[in-house]
Amino acid sequence: LSPQGNKLWGGRFVGDTDPIMEKFNASVAYDQRMWDADIRGSKAYVRALEKARLVSTDEMDQILHGMDQISEEWSKGAFVIKPGDEDIHTANERRLKELVGAPAGKLHTGRSRNDQVVTDMRLWLRDAISTLAGNALQLISTMVERAAAEIDVLVPGYTHMQRAQPIRWSHWILSHAVALSRDVERLQEIKKRVNVLALGRYAYSCSYSIQLDQLAFDAISLNSMDATGQRDFVAEFLFWASLCLTHLSKMAEDLMLYSTKEFSFITLSDAYSTGSSLMPQKKNADSLELIRSKAGRVFGREDKEAMFDCYDTINAVLQVSTGVMSTLQINQSVMEAALSPDMLATDLAYYLVRKGMPFREAHGVSGKAVFMAESKNIPLNQLTLEDLTTLSPLFGGDVASVWDYRSSVEQYSAPGGTAKNSVTAQVEHLRVWLKKQAQ
Amino acid sequence: LSPQGNKLWGGRFVGDTDPIMEKFNASVAYDQRMWDADIRGSKAYVRALEKARLVSTDEMDQILHGMDQISEEWSKGAFVIKPGDEDIHTANERRLKELVGAPAGKLHTGRSRNDQVVTDMRLWLRDAISTLAGNALQLISTMVERAAAEIDVLVPGYTHMQRAQPIRWSHWILSHAVALSRDVERLQEIKKRVNVLALGRYAYSCSYSIQLDQLAFDAISLNSMDATGQRDFVAEFLFWASLCLTHLSKMAEDLMLYSTKEFSFITLSDAYSTGSSLMPQKKNADSLELIRSKAGRVFGREDKEAMFDCYDTINAVLQVSTGVMSTLQINQSVMEAALSPDMLATDLAYYLVRKGMPFREAHGVSGKAVFMAESKNIPLNQLTLEDLTTLSPLFGGDVASVWDYRSSVEQYSAPGGTAKNSVTAQVEHLRVWLKKQAQ
Amino acid sequence: LSPQGNKLWGGRFVGDTDPIMEKFNASVAYDQRMWDADIRGSKAYVRALEKARLVSTDEMDQILHGMDQISEEWSKGAFVIKPGDEDIHTANERRLKELVGAPAGKLHTGRSRNDQVVTDMRLWLRDAISTLAGNALQLISTMVERAAAEIDVLVPGYTHMQRAQPIRWSHWILSHAVALSRDVERLQEIKKRVNVLALGRYAYSCSYSIQLDQLAFDAISLNSMDATGQRDFVAEFLFWASLCLTHLSKMAEDLMLYSTKEFSFITLSDAYSTGSSLMPQKKNADSLELIRSKAGRVFGREDKEAMFDCYDTINAVLQVSTGVMSTLQINQSVMEAALSPDMLATDLAYYLVRKGMPFREAHGVSGKAVFMAESKNIPLNQLTLEDLTTLSPLFGGDVASVWDYRSSVEQYSAPGGTAKNSVTAQVEHLRVWLKKQAQ
Amino acid sequence: LSPQGNKLWGGRFVGDTDPIMEKFNASVAYDQRMWDADIRGSKAYVRALEKARLVSTDEMDQILHGMDQISEEWSKGAFVIKPGDEDIHTANERRLKELVGAPAGKLHTGRSRNDQVVTDMRLWLRDAISTLAGNALQLISTMVERAAAEIDVLVPGYTHMQRAQPIRWSHWILSHAVALSRDVERLQEIKKRVNVLALGRYAYSCSYSIQLDQLAFDAISLNSMDATGQRDFVAEFLFWASLCLTHLSKMAEDLMLYSTKEFSFITLSDAYSTGSSLMPQKKNADSLELIRSKAGRVFGREDKEAMFDCYDTINAVLQVSTGVMSTLQINQSVMEAALSPDMLATDLAYYLVRKGMPFREAHGVSGKAVFMAESKNIPLNQLTLEDLTTLSPLFGGDVASVWDYRSSVEQYSAPGGTAKNSVTAQVEHLRVWLKKQAQ
Repeated sequence: LSPQGNKLWGGRFVGDTDPIMEKFNASVAYDQRMWDADIRGSKAYVRALEKARLVSTDEMDQILHGMDQISEEWSKGAFVIKPGDEDIHTANERRLKELVGAPAGKLHTGRSRNDQVVTDMRLWLRDAISTLAGNALQLISTMVERAAAEIDVLVPGYTHMQRAQPIRWSHWILSHAVALSRDVERLQEIKKRVNVLALGRYAYSCSYSIQLDQLAFDAISLNSMDATGQRDFVAEFLFWASLCLTHLSKMAEDLMLYSTKEFSFITLSDAYSTGSSLMPQKKNADSLELIRSKAGRVFGREDKEAMFDCYDTINAVLQVSTGVMSTLQINQSVMEAALSPDMLATDLAYYLVRKGMPFREAHGVSGKAVFMAESKNIPLNQLTLEDLTTLSPLFGGDVASVWDYRSSVEQYSAPGGTAKNSVTAQVEHLRVWLKKQAQ
Repeated sequence: LSPQGNKLWGGRFVGDTDPIMEKFNASVAYDQRMWDADIRGSKAYVRALEKARLVSTDEMDQILHGMDQISEEWSKGAFVIKPGDEDIHTANERRLKELVGAPAGKLHTGRSRNDQVVTDMRLWLRDAISTLAGNALQLISTMVERAAAEIDVLVPGYTHMQRAQPIRWSHWILSHAVALSRDVERLQEIKKRVNVLALGRYAYSCSYSIQLDQLAFDAISLNSMDATGQRDFVAEFLFWASLCLTHLSKMAEDLMLYSTKEFSFITLSDAYSTGSSLMPQKKNADSLELIRSKAGRVFGREDKEAMFDCYDTINAVLQVSTGVMSTLQINQSVMEAALSPDMLATDLAYYLVRKGMPFREAHGVSGKAVFMAESKNIPLNQLTLEDLTTLSPLFGGDVASVWDYRSSVEQYSAPGGTAKNSVTAQVEHLRVWLKKQAQ
Repeated sequence: LSPQGNKLWGGRFVGDTDPIMEKFNASVAYDQRMWDADIRGSKAYVRALEKARLVSTDEMDQILHGMDQISEEWSKGAFVIKPGDEDIHTANERRLKELVGAPAGKLHTGRSRNDQVVTDMRLWLRDAISTLAGNALQLISTMVERAAAEIDVLVPGYTHMQRAQPIRWSHWILSHAVALSRDVERLQEIKKRVNVLALGRYAYSCSYSIQLDQLAFDAISLNSMDATGQRDFVAEFLFWASLCLTHLSKMAEDLMLYSTKEFSFITLSDAYSTGSSLMPQKKNADSLELIRSKAGRVFGREDKEAMFDCYDTINAVLQVSTGVMSTLQINQSVMEAALSPDMLATDLAYYLVRKGMPFREAHGVSGKAVFMAESKNIPLNQLTLEDLTTLSPLFGGDVASVWDYRSSVEQYSAPGGTAKNSVTAQVEHLRVWLKKQAQ
Repeated sequence: LSPQGNKLWGGRFVGDTDPIMEKFNASVAYDQRMWDADIRGSKAYVRALEKARLVSTDEMDQILHGMDQISEEWSKGAFVIKPGDEDIHTANERRLKELVGAPAGKLHTGRSRNDQVVTDMRLWLRDAISTLAGNALQLISTMVERAAAEIDVLVPGYTHMQRAQPIRWSHWILSHAVALSRDVERLQEIKKRVNVLALGRYAYSCSYSIQLDQLAFDAISLNSMDATGQRDFVAEFLFWASLCLTHLSKMAEDLMLYSTKEFSFITLSDAYSTGSSLMPQKKNADSLELIRSKAGRVFGREDKEAMFDCYDTINAVLQVSTGVMSTLQINQSVMEAALSPDMLATDLAYYLVRKGMPFREAHGVSGKAVFMAESKNIPLNQLTLEDLTTLSPLFGGDVASVWDYRSSVEQYSAPGGTAKNSVTAQVEHLRVWLKKQAQ
């Protein structure tokens, strides 16, 4: 009896394989996730073999029937992996042989395992990308509708974690939604390059058209060595996920800040918080921390294991993000109470610009006003006209009009700005875009 | 006198800045490379300010004239960076003030430095991408023409560094050219997302159309916070370079192997070799080693410094690769002498398949033939018909026809295969594609 | 019935937790590997609680007994993980409650889960490090004995994959063994920092001495926030593994080259090779390829999952490397046939140095000799004395003595050199070192 | 005239080198930083050559004198790099030849450039490590003294950015100082492995003892191939810097939070803040943001360039951190006002534990009390005894004693705890440790 079990290169070897090496080399523990892709691929392939008269119609039917049985076993969780099944391809072929006997040995004619692996990965990833795109769109849609609903809420805009200028809460939401919409567009570009039939060099001329037809590939690879050797499409997918996770991480980072006791801008739903095993009062924003922690994650090398790990991570993160964004509550009064007159110092400078002072100079004068208010320990808008005119004679009674957060926000009405009509335009743009994606 | 020098926020600060901190924070040492982008951006911006009546026509003319002078200084290497010029934007504005006085202070009206930085980066990177695409196309073209010229040369194909099956040398070349052609396509996609006007939130409504017109941007950013805060386009560029370097690295790795004394398939031009300071006979494939070593390189965070470093690396690697590929000499007789009959073991199996044996079984029989030849210490094609028939009765006198490398290569005539017409089709496909890119 | 199941913060929450979030947050699938460390830690802790009179002696005994039962369940594979067991700590505590009732609720007094996690990780990693050190020493020992046995075999030394100078095969082996011995030393340093009791801030004063005694920790952490918050010891371990994998990868890379058909210096055991599902003659050095591919692997963030993954990888790689190194066969005649006279060009230069020529000049002359031999298409040692004297009058009849590979190797007798006594000294040094490690 | 200029392998080459390749290959732009190490190394080496009678005493004296002249040129900034000086080693040797003529050609006898590079790197890094250790100790010392001075200030402790329990401000400072002290210890371990004489295989037996004596190396490398081929010491240094930057980054992240308007716990010195070019009121914590951003930075491959870049970064970060920590002002009243009764919920549970309730149950009751207080919209300590007894009959009038932040902090008196004597012990421990380091 051969000690090699079901290994595909059983013919030649005379020594045993080191079991650690065998385990090290085996991938069936994780690549069994591609069982369905593997079966679909083999069914299309056997049809091509029949066209090329490399299997008879009867053999083809037996193989197709066997494959359907295997598929059912996997669906029901009844498929049993045996020692020697080093990967999903070996496992399915071994099972086929048990079910249909001799014809199973013909399935591999003119196909290398490398071709099979890469075809299965492409079929699997194509489906995975569709799921992810759907989840990402769901998240964007949630954000856009929330932005539409809460368009009148003002909040401090922050740069470097310091209060900068007043903005709309919706403007903050949309800044993240826009980044995610680019991610969806990138994902579509990747899908094009995933959905390619990687025709190995041993391919029979007839086989590719069958596979194109039956497996709905968009194109055929140009060069057989490139086809089986490259994993660019996985590298692209991993990078895509890293970038998308970075976007979600930035959003989570802001939300973590907003949900601290000290900010108190938002309250996270209990469904996305966890407690402490020690401190009874603790309510941790664990969902946000988990999302944040995934950023900057490097998904190892371009192999199947990385592809699955990456998919699971981004898939969970997208869904949890949707949950968080749809259930958090905002504390509008706290948000608006956080606006302070010094956030209008730029407006004070523009006031002077409108009176004819060059901006650089106006920036200096406004800075001095801030310093004066700090020295007097009063808010910037409490400086008297006398105070201000010591800094510049251009100040007049109309300076009072500067101290209005809402008008400050409204003045930025260029595309992408904070004015209500600008933010509404962003909402509308994304709604149209979402509809287009759904088609 | 203010100790703050030319720093833009000079108005408010009363303390000194720690000089280590200042140096740590300064970027002019490397971002001065964007001097031209910065000047072009400012010239378009001042035109917008004039349209918005925030500067007079006369002031605009003075600023435009000053900018042209600065441009000339940079071109001639006469621009002097001064202490306090923390970045290229500050440096150019400081110089403008020296040249035209007061109007310079108006240039920054309604523009934050963040907007300026991101606009300059986009303008610079757009040009960089064009250069890189040109260099990549040059390399691909060199490879395609070499593949066309040397289409009749056979060479062992390797997998896992072990001889696998005979292929055409051109098939190997094209497997790398095809990967590079995908890189060029990806670069075009990135360019679309780079060539966007990143309109900051302080943008005046009028300014964007001027900038679109004059700076040839394709689109405007959707949300002002996203516009100034995101560096996705840099992240994409860095990833692109990593992937492209991986492709070139794989090619270099193969060439290093082929240029060892033991393989001796190719001889590198002296122009791409270096010697040893110790061993007079050494001729090192340093060009290949340098190319190979750049793969897997991580280009740090998504900042300007990484963008420049990345550009310099990939730009040099593309040109050196072109040089290497256009000057190396192949040793055809050595390549073909490296073909050995065991590389036709798959053909031997197919011979049996054609006689009706299932492939898995035929693979086993052929494996036993290899083992028998090894045991007898003779080449596989020296087994007698008697030897072979002990393994399977299907062997006949026509088995002799198997031992022909050229027919072996010719049988793979599917798209992307190794047959002469398949390889020629690849060459033709890439020539057409190259022509399209050049338009 | 509470919807929160066994979650430790069950008291306060009123909403349900999103199941995706829950799964995302759960770690029991992988951290159950620490079941033994968790039980040992809890047993020591309950003894401390009893000393502090926070549990009675009877309660302690019940808990200890329950813990022993749980330990037995894990050993036998009989422990059943239930929904709600989010990590190994929760699972064990939940099971304890089922077994002993109320006293289980006291085990967590004055201990946060963070303390427990970090203690368990330290206990687990301490054992893991011992195993790895043992495996690394086994590998080094194999290599040292092989080097001792094959000390007389010469082989080309390569730099940049080009033949450089003749060396002993053992010198090559030891260059890798020496790197691995540094790895073992680094691992010992890390172990010191792993074996520290991470006392959380809620620790009862008495508890640490009990845990030091019973769990054999070397030291106590200095600051409670640092103790529970830092994962430096994991980061160090991950880096250690990366560096060690890099060393093994370099060794594997050389061996892959030496096992190509073109080099044919070594033959890998069948136990460490695999075949091809397509090509019957293929025998791939898959063990080497797997080892090589692990280098440069980044083990994610400093968490438990990365720690386990890293351990599994390096543990398998060390053992497979030992297998490879102990079973490969060398082809001495091929190795020595690969030595060629041009590899003695440095010796030719030294010949001139001994006659009084400065080295730089001698290097130039020797280089010209190499060029002359190449032009004449003869080996370097076939140049006649007439040929040589056209390059320098210093050449004499004694130049013939240069062309001896073995004397070339013997002249480098400084510590770490290639002379037989130098290599023997390395072997002896490592044998002594290995003995010391075994103590 | 040779087109090869000063290149060291000038003898053999006949073609020109591609200038892009040359530039790509050159390192003098950055490795000139090792000019002093290179000169010290060459001076020790020529003394060894003289001992071995490979140069005469007179030649040695000329070379030593020439080297001193070159050293002076570098010191004064007068050394001129010429085209063809591809690295610092070539540059110094080229200049030596200009100064002393023929004897310069003997300096390279029996030394390969690889040996020279690695020796110079080790000498340079040894000095760099001393500087960094000094800067790190300065920072730790600043932190320890600040912790000693402000030991009575209480502040909320945070986990997951949520208020957890009251701690001493000094406890927070020391949690970071302790991590840094481990970094210094790691750096000392690395230094041992850096300070090794890497003896290449061409080394003359005498040369190593001279170099050990004159260059103060601790040990000699064991194997010549390992000696010149490995860069482990650089990899270790890069990892060390990454870990240390992570520690400083975490500290900076906390400080950024504490310096937001919403927290207002600390005020950064103007010397470590920057303003905005647009918003006159902004004062950004740029020093903290820069420190934070350096974490997670990957320092490329283990080459010279990475080593220098890494040193510059960590060197600046350590000094800026010292500046920040020595000049920031704390706002004690704000810190203490941020303590709130719900942070004592754990103490409330412990109160019940002391009355005999198991901790898990007590945790549940305390959690219900928090929920009750939230529902009534009152602080936790405002619940009446009646309220509390509805949750557990164990509550009595003495529950009032729970609501004292200072006693809460004082109860954790185990080593590393928050009690005043525990924190003082940390301070003392570190002061003693610092003194020991200074020796």
